[in-house]
Amino acid sequence: MPNALDEARRELALANRIVANEGVIDAFGHVSMRDPRNPNRYLQMQAMAPRDVTVADIITFDLDSNAINARGRPIYRERFIHGQIYQMRPDVNAVIHSHSPTVIPFSVTEKPLRAIFHNGHFLGQGAPVWEIRSVEGEKNNMLVLTNELGRSLAETLGKGSVVLMRGHGNAVAAHDLKTAVFRAIYTEVNAKLQMQAVMLGGPINFLNQYEQEKRQNVDRPWETWRKELGLT
Amino acid sequence: MPNALDEARRELALANRIVANEGVIDAFGHVSMRDPRNPNRYLQMQAMAPRDVTVADIITFDLDSNAINARGRPIYRERFIHGQIYQMRPDVNAVIHSHSPTVIPFSVTEKPLRAIFHNGHFLGQGAPVWEIRSVEGEKNNMLVLTNELGRSLAETLGKGSVVLMRGHGNAVAAHDLKTAVFRAIYTEVNAKLQMQAVMLGGPINFLNQYEQEKRQNVDRPWETWRKELGLT
Amino acid sequence: MPNALDEARRELALANRIVANEGVIDAFGHVSMRDPRNPNRYLQMQAMAPRDVTVADIITFDLDSNAINARGRPIYRERFIHGQIYQMRPDVNAVIHSHSPTVIPFSVTEKPLRAIFHNGHFLGQGAPVWEIRSVEGEKNNMLVLTNELGRSLAETLGKGSVVLMRGHGNAVAAHDLKTAVFRAIYTEVNAKLQMQAVMLGGPINFLNQYEQEKRQNVDRPWETWRKELGLT
Amino acid sequence: MPNALDEARRELALANRIVANEGVIDAFGHVSMRDPRNPNRYLQMQAMAPRDVTVADIITFDLDSNAINARGRPIYRERFIHGQIYQMRPDVNAVIHSHSPTVIPFSVTEKPLRAIFHNGHFLGQGAPVWEIRSVEGEKNNMLVLTNELGRSLAETLGKGSVVLMRGHGNAVAAHDLKTAVFRAIYTEVNAKLQMQAVMLGGPINFLNQYEQEKRQNVDRPWETWRKELGLT
Repeated sequence: MPNALDEARRELALANRIVANEGVIDAFGHVSMRDPRNPNRYLQMQAMAPRDVTVADIITFDLDSNAINARGRPIYRERFIHGQIYQMRPDVNAVIHSHSPTVIPFSVTEKPLRAIFHNGHFLGQGAPVWEIRSVEGEKNNMLVLTNELGRSLAETLGKGSVVLMRGHGNAVAAHDLKTAVFRAIYTEVNAKLQMQAVMLGGPINFLNQYEQEKRQNVDRPWETWRKELGLT
Repeated sequence: MPNALDEARRELALANRIVANEGVIDAFGHVSMRDPRNPNRYLQMQAMAPRDVTVADIITFDLDSNAINARGRPIYRERFIHGQIYQMRPDVNAVIHSHSPTVIPFSVTEKPLRAIFHNGHFLGQGAPVWEIRSVEGEKNNMLVLTNELGRSLAETLGKGSVVLMRGHGNAVAAHDLKTAVFRAIYTEVNAKLQMQAVMLGGPINFLNQYEQEKRQNVDRPWETWRKELGLT
Repeated sequence: MPNALDEARRELALANRIVANEGVIDAFGHVSMRDPRNPNRYLQMQAMAPRDVTVADIITFDLDSNAINARGRPIYRERFIHGQIYQMRPDVNAVIHSHSPTVIPFSVTEKPLRAIFHNGHFLGQGAPVWEIRSVEGEKNNMLVLTNELGRSLAETLGKGSVVLMRGHGNAVAAHDLKTAVFRAIYTEVNAKLQMQAVMLGGPINFLNQYEQEKRQNVDRPWETWRKELGLT
Repeated sequence: MPNALDEARRELALANRIVANEGVIDAFGHVSMRDPRNPNRYLQMQAMAPRDVTVADIITFDLDSNAINARGRPIYRERFIHGQIYQMRPDVNAVIHSHSPTVIPFSVTEKPLRAIFHNGHFLGQGAPVWEIRSVEGEKNNMLVLTNELGRSLAETLGKGSVVLMRGHGNAVAAHDLKTAVFRAIYTEVNAKLQMQAVMLGGPINFLNQYEQEKRQNVDRPWETWRKELGLT
């Protein structure tokens, strides 16, 4: 399916630019997708500023995060986040790691980040927080630089959609790329809303366990974000 | 009056772009107006990203929110918000539904959103909050997908200008389109100001029941917002 | 001095665009300057969206705020703010009225807006808050629509630089136009800083009564703001 | 090494534009670097709005902050911040002084600004705050206008990376220019995150004394910020 693959690769490049333009990733952070031809591979851009990536920057990795075709291009040091989530979650086909700014404060305090409005329903009753000290102890360097650390992070994610990384950022998983982009952006929005609700004070009426949009529309926001890049 | 209608339709398209550009609606949210030719009809854009709508995207609905001339174009699933408000409020000729970001925290906490400055006077002594659980119970999907839900929402709005939707967004009603746009934008501004006043602490000196601008100027801000779209 | 006057008029038009571009005024708010030819006159733009004003929009007023040369152009209803400050303060040659967003919360709560950093030194030990109810009682319309109200506001300003208007906005006065623009913008900045300091908690170490920049540089920021308009 | 010097000078001009574009400096604030040819000299732009600086605006100073080649161009009054840090810290080759907005509230309250996420690791267990009153007493003018004041500030910086200036701003030091830019920008980001964590309430899990990125990547963010200026 060369055309389907080409389309997937174009969408991967576009996803990077969208999450950068929407303020979810800055110079750091990366998007990946499982290779549509081979579930034991995933695709990720070379390590670079994400604003201007194109399909020519895509590198293929195996699920232990060995680059198959780097050809000298730099690769992300924290790619193990992606490989290990794909290994543990066959249902996941897209992963985004970011330092999404309003999410980090929830990773170093005690109130869980929870679904506070319908578009954040995928956060459920609270996103787990992964603590690197639980694997590497006090003398760690904060980054997911090995498969062992990636596996521990993926275990904390469990069957969920989002896992926070203490003092660092978060990782978002989804069945497809557009949903991963939707979740990465609305994780940030939900965090802003929850922080404001905390500021208003008193008990917060979160979504209950049943409340969620059954058929989440991700095409319309994708189209909006694409247009905000100036693309027609 | 073909010219008046054309002008109304152009303003409806423009209203969508203004509230998108001012950050009140993102990929979601919609503006409608009562059909100037027929009070039992209303006009709304097809379901799409609102940034680039034109008059060609306008669809006519009856007040039960059946599309009259969709011709295969997608329609908003939550259009019942609009139809039911037009049914219950003959004085209302424009409705905006949004996920206006700073308003949502007020829908899940206990302090009512109230008029804190003169441009928010239409919020009065507190905007009501509609709870979908009161109609559908705990197992709801958070969206206004039926006339029954729309009617319940319109009843909570009552004679007011703004109704908050718990964990979701809000709906704004006005006698005319420019005033609806004004209210949608200044509901968000008022929410920001009120949240900051809460942060400063102590009692807040809200507008009293008499304080309001008698002759609200909506033409000058409309002109400002229009120019911010790059239109001359 | 036709050239000096032309230059003053160009700067007045530019000042409007700067404070609009820097987020101090939106569709509402206005800048004025005392007429350099006649201290019993002041210059102000016609009532319009301030983004695109030019010298052709300037109208001359006497100090009771009667328009001298409106020639049918609309004038600001709240111009009495300006005229009365010029009457009471011969040292003041420029006035800005705005709804500067972070300042309003200080007008409805109990903590005075005070100089928290060197660029806000002109706020001194606390800006006064004017209460329209003290003149018009509970049934007022929040706006400064008469000379009587303008005089009361000017009295509350006293010898200061900034007066807050409860639930409405503020007025800034200065010896010259660039300093008025500087103060309008840094009143907003100071308000943001003070709000954040309140959020951090505990006592705040404000500027004392002696601390201030003796020779405030207003040319460099003016040049910066001018360039942010895209002007060379 | 004429080419290395030319490159250094281009990077200095670019650094000014980057920190302005990223919101760390506005009309005020300045970047300097030690002269790569002579460790007893440093390079700084002439006093001007930093948005449009070029290499033609660079002036050389000795470490007592006497201008070597000003040729009538205006120089920054607070240059003593830079000269004194270079004198006291042979390991430092780049210094940035700014009024970085979210940092100032930490300078007037009691909670130290501390490393809350990995990209803020250089803040360590808390940045010191310099109090000008400790040198000049209550009657000071808030600015670092002498070598004596600069020396006092440099002493408070000590061996650290960042020193806050009470009610004024901060100074950032680094071994090289790109790292100084990185630190200036992430000092602001860390301050925002810490303020939000305070708002969420409860104990904050800061980085411990061991946690830091061993090999901080500053090239990729530099490239991102450069592209955000519209440069290719």
